[in-house]
Amino acid sequence: MINFILNMPTKIIFGKGESGRVGEIVQEYGTKALLVTGKTSAKKTGSLRKIEQSMQQAGIQYIIYDQIEPNPRATTVDKGGQIAREEGCDVIVALGGGSTMDAAKAIATVALSGRPCGEYIRGNKTGKWKELLPIQKALPIVTIPTLAATGSETNNTAVITNWETGEKSGMSGPGLHPKAAILDPELTYSVSAAYTADGAVDIFTHLYEGYFSGDENANVQDEITEGLMRNVIEYGRKAMDFPEDYEARSHLQWTSSLALIGIANAGRGGGFPVHGMEHILSAHYDISHGRGLAILTPAYFEYIVKGEKPHRLARLGRKVFQIHEKDDQVVADATIKAVVAWFKELEAYGTLQQVGIEKEKLAFMAKESVRISGLDGQYLPGPRNITSEDVLRIFEMSY
Amino acid sequence: MINFILNMPTKIIFGKGESGRVGEIVQEYGTKALLVTGKTSAKKTGSLRKIEQSMQQAGIQYIIYDQIEPNPRATTVDKGGQIAREEGCDVIVALGGGSTMDAAKAIATVALSGRPCGEYIRGNKTGKWKELLPIQKALPIVTIPTLAATGSETNNTAVITNWETGEKSGMSGPGLHPKAAILDPELTYSVSAAYTADGAVDIFTHLYEGYFSGDENANVQDEITEGLMRNVIEYGRKAMDFPEDYEARSHLQWTSSLALIGIANAGRGGGFPVHGMEHILSAHYDISHGRGLAILTPAYFEYIVKGEKPHRLARLGRKVFQIHEKDDQVVADATIKAVVAWFKELEAYGTLQQVGIEKEKLAFMAKESVRISGLDGQYLPGPRNITSEDVLRIFEMSY
Repeated sequence: MINFILNMPTKIIFGKGESGRVGEIVQEYGTKALLVTGKTSAKKTGSLRKIEQSMQQAGIQYIIYDQIEPNPRATTVDKGGQIAREEGCDVIVALGGGSTMDAAKAIATVALSGRPCGEYIRGNKTGKWKELLPIQKALPIVTIPTLAATGSETNNTAVITNWETGEKSGMSGPGLHPKAAILDPELTYSVSAAYTADGAVDIFTHLYEGYFSGDENANVQDEITEGLMRNVIEYGRKAMDFPEDYEARSHLQWTSSLALIGIANAGRGGGFPVHGMEHILSAHYDISHGRGLAILTPAYFEYIVKGEKPHRLARLGRKVFQIHEKDDQVVADATIKAVVAWFKELEAYGTLQQVGIEKEKLAFMAKESVRISGLDGQYLPGPRNITSEDVLRIFEMSY
Repeated sequence: MINFILNMPTKIIFGKGESGRVGEIVQEYGTKALLVTGKTSAKKTGSLRKIEQSMQQAGIQYIIYDQIEPNPRATTVDKGGQIAREEGCDVIVALGGGSTMDAAKAIATVALSGRPCGEYIRGNKTGKWKELLPIQKALPIVTIPTLAATGSETNNTAVITNWETGEKSGMSGPGLHPKAAILDPELTYSVSAAYTADGAVDIFTHLYEGYFSGDENANVQDEITEGLMRNVIEYGRKAMDFPEDYEARSHLQWTSSLALIGIANAGRGGGFPVHGMEHILSAHYDISHGRGLAILTPAYFEYIVKGEKPHRLARLGRKVFQIHEKDDQVVADATIKAVVAWFKELEAYGTLQQVGIEKEKLAFMAKESVRISGLDGQYLPGPRNITSEDVLRIFEMSY
């Protein structure tokens, strides 16, 4: 186990109906909120109305900013930050999925500092992020996730896309920890089967990234990771089949938050290379993050993990997929097959070609992924250093 | 999964040598510390000197209060609180095991409020605790555990004994969350085999209490709990045999903190009946808390858990002790045997008679345990309501 610092200051309010208490919770942090949400879904499902009612009852003033798109743009963030400044908002409330929560965190940063969001995005060409990260201060943030996926509700990272430069990457720091996260699994009842599946893949990926790339002598973390993996597998498909099953939705929601709150990876210090590879795809093509991860994972396992850490792939297979063969290589192969079979069960399995990615852009994007998400722009940190040639090979295998 | 609120604001600094950074960490919270520790061990092992050096280098003034006994007394706490007030201390640093950390939390409360500690102890005869709990404010607290056991380093509870009235119970509230916990597994190298074993039993008990008494529909929590149990079993005996094995000590330390930080029990809402039964014993006889738990556990499993929740006992047996029989009752019986065998391996198995408890006091203590630790003084909350007659039966079975 390597040395670590772990900070989980977000107050978590979890359970059926808890989103009805948002007003009294927001009261603790401010008096005038920018209520950040997407363009349609929170209105359609009625969750926005519910949040508004609670805010009104608590006497919280608010401005609705309902402009967040999937793979949220730096320009959208800057506009939101400007509105928050002009309107004198002192708290940011996010109602939505990972895109909305990430955008809200970035808005909270911009609203306080007045600097454009693009400067904070890791790997951006201005280089300003090197002095601006970690973000120490932002307006207080309250998250209300409507999708179990990114874990953004309880961590201090936001992933933002500069569409003009094709730079999608993280901004992070202690200032971005939400003050409170209201996790009401009933809000996720209306999530489509496809998004539920993409969310499950995202959760699974958060868990395997550190498992394969971090320090191996961390059995506490491994056991927690494997337990969370078993949960996302057990409840992912169930939530697709029975969207209003509280047991499935609550387990999926809690697994998503725990997967990236810090506990699974602290003491392992693993990297997130597959996220780096996926981010460049969704920076250039507007694909779902979870779907992109599902497409890249089998090739990553086959080309990188099986070669470098067959024993770890075998451990995952034994503990999570109950594959009980003796030989590590045999189990490693069977594990990749089991993961693919699970993605198929989730109807999330596919190819880069199927989601409309052009073959001739692969080489460029492979280079860019390492420049933007790599350590010193040199390589993605994984079970071994992953170069742009490696990324290209994985892209090609996934095409 | 039942609704819950989870708050884990303590900043955790974990790893080899990190206790050498205490000075710079304490700087964030105050300028003059009351350094709370036990009477001998921190001096003997050199850890006190190490902490002092770091405080001096960082320019932190400090007063040493080295009067904490095992099962710390309310009178000792009050004296510490008075010294902190007189000396103008603005931060409390705890170096020691659960007793020291609990005493430090109570001192931080008394130092700020000026009220005697006894009034805050749950179940005390004054009844003042009903208005004083939860504790909202205390001086900032920094914990440096030297023993993996109570999890006090990262939670907001302190267990204090009023020796005159025989009342040992918890005081708690958001004000008692340590600001920072410095977990340096090397500080636990010098812990004796017997205390290492008692700590392992305490950790295991923290994990099974909610597992058997809380909501059963919480698989995420169950998986985490079982994973932590497997770790305490794997590394408990190993740390006794190889006291300077960093792998064993670091895993034991991290398991101890995670077991009671809130994650295992949040969403289950389980009670801690065996702790209630043990506290009355160590309020009247100065026995080790972990040893008392080891003595009571087999009878509790046999008399309460097996009758009420044989399927849960069987799940634990299958998942933690790899007992693979079909029939729940058969596995439940085998699980109790496996737990006893593990306690014997830890050399922690014994009887109440062996630790000097008088048979004629059992009935009185059974009643007092329910009065002090019970819900409204009526029963201990477990897999079913546990009355004083039940407690007496468990005491007799454990004699």
